[in-house]
Amino acid sequence: MNKAERTKQFIVEKTAPIFNRKGYSGTSLSDMTEATGLTKGSIYGNFASKDEVALAVFDYNLKKIESIIKGEMSKQQSVKDQLLVYVNVYSNFQNFPFPEGGCPILNTATEADDTHQVLKKKAAEAINLWKNKIISLVEKGLNNKEFKKPVNAEQFALTIIAMIEGGLMITNLTGKINYRKSIMQSVEKMIRELE
Amino acid sequence: MNKAERTKQFIVEKTAPIFNRKGYSGTSLSDMTEATGLTKGSIYGNFASKDEVALAVFDYNLKKIESIIKGEMSKQQSVKDQLLVYVNVYSNFQNFPFPEGGCPILNTATEADDTHQVLKKKAAEAINLWKNKIISLVEKGLNNKEFKKPVNAEQFALTIIAMIEGGLMITNLTGKINYRKSIMQSVEKMIRELE
Repeated sequence: MNKAERTKQFIVEKTAPIFNRKGYSGTSLSDMTEATGLTKGSIYGNFASKDEVALAVFDYNLKKIESIIKGEMSKQQSVKDQLLVYVNVYSNFQNFPFPEGGCPILNTATEADDTHQVLKKKAAEAINLWKNKIISLVEKGLNNKEFKKPVNAEQFALTIIAMIEGGLMITNLTGKINYRKSIMQSVEKMIRELE
Repeated sequence: MNKAERTKQFIVEKTAPIFNRKGYSGTSLSDMTEATGLTKGSIYGNFASKDEVALAVFDYNLKKIESIIKGEMSKQQSVKDQLLVYVNVYSNFQNFPFPEGGCPILNTATEADDTHQVLKKKAAEAINLWKNKIISLVEKGLNNKEFKKPVNAEQFALTIIAMIEGGLMITNLTGKINYRKSIMQSVEKMIRELE
């Protein structure tokens, strides 16, 4: 990594929690200079626009989650236990190096609707990749006879993602962590019913 | 309704789609004057602040949904069919006078996190009332022996709300209405399994 790349990485790391908490439109240039200690000129010497920082930040926050999930799944043998990683991580994400400010997909979802089309597209791609990951796990479990119940893998995948994201939203709003944990128990039940 | 009340109602009706689409921080005073054709002085002669308009708008949008659900439930006899109203309405909300811009709870959820505590509190209350409504329906169905399976009514209620809100979010992001419909089929399955 050369100096320019290191500076870009530094800007992304320092502004990631702000974009994730305040949203794209809520994050100001002065938030960015304050978080980094850099001048406006220095930030825009490294990124063409606030958009570019926001997109890099989205990738950075998403990659944090993906690497937690991947790391936890690699410790598990069965497909069922790999799927249960979602339950464990989203029930207790304070125990993992989860992005400050929570799920970047959820945080992008409502605001991106009207304000920032490229960010919205990124979040939509993240949903589709996540869906395909769950589908391929379910199919693997069906192929190796671990799962016996017939299941619509896409519906299963979308439902689990909705429960996770909806659960995060409900806890964000109400402040009740037990609500999310309770919803994650329903995710666990759905996964165990595949056997 | 006197003239002042009518003007307030007019401001709420005209600005409701804007707040619901653009969010609280995204809605400007000029959006409000443009939508209503009123001057700044006239708007702030009727409401103390943008906050007050936003709160009245939230109530207005939420009431729209509540009245759809209540109206549809009143046509149904069994508790199961009353619960299935959620499936029907959220699968096909374009067939109902649903608020322009979608679910106000979802739209408030991420932005309200840091920007507007009173709005966030209102959305949290809406979640809790919704949860209690579903719990009371489940308990009614258990009491009248319509439902036979033992169920944790609170977990059931939270899970359904998460699926609905998560499903709305996923469709908002991806533009795929079939994703939401697929998730609503899982809600239907959960409801039918109570019998």
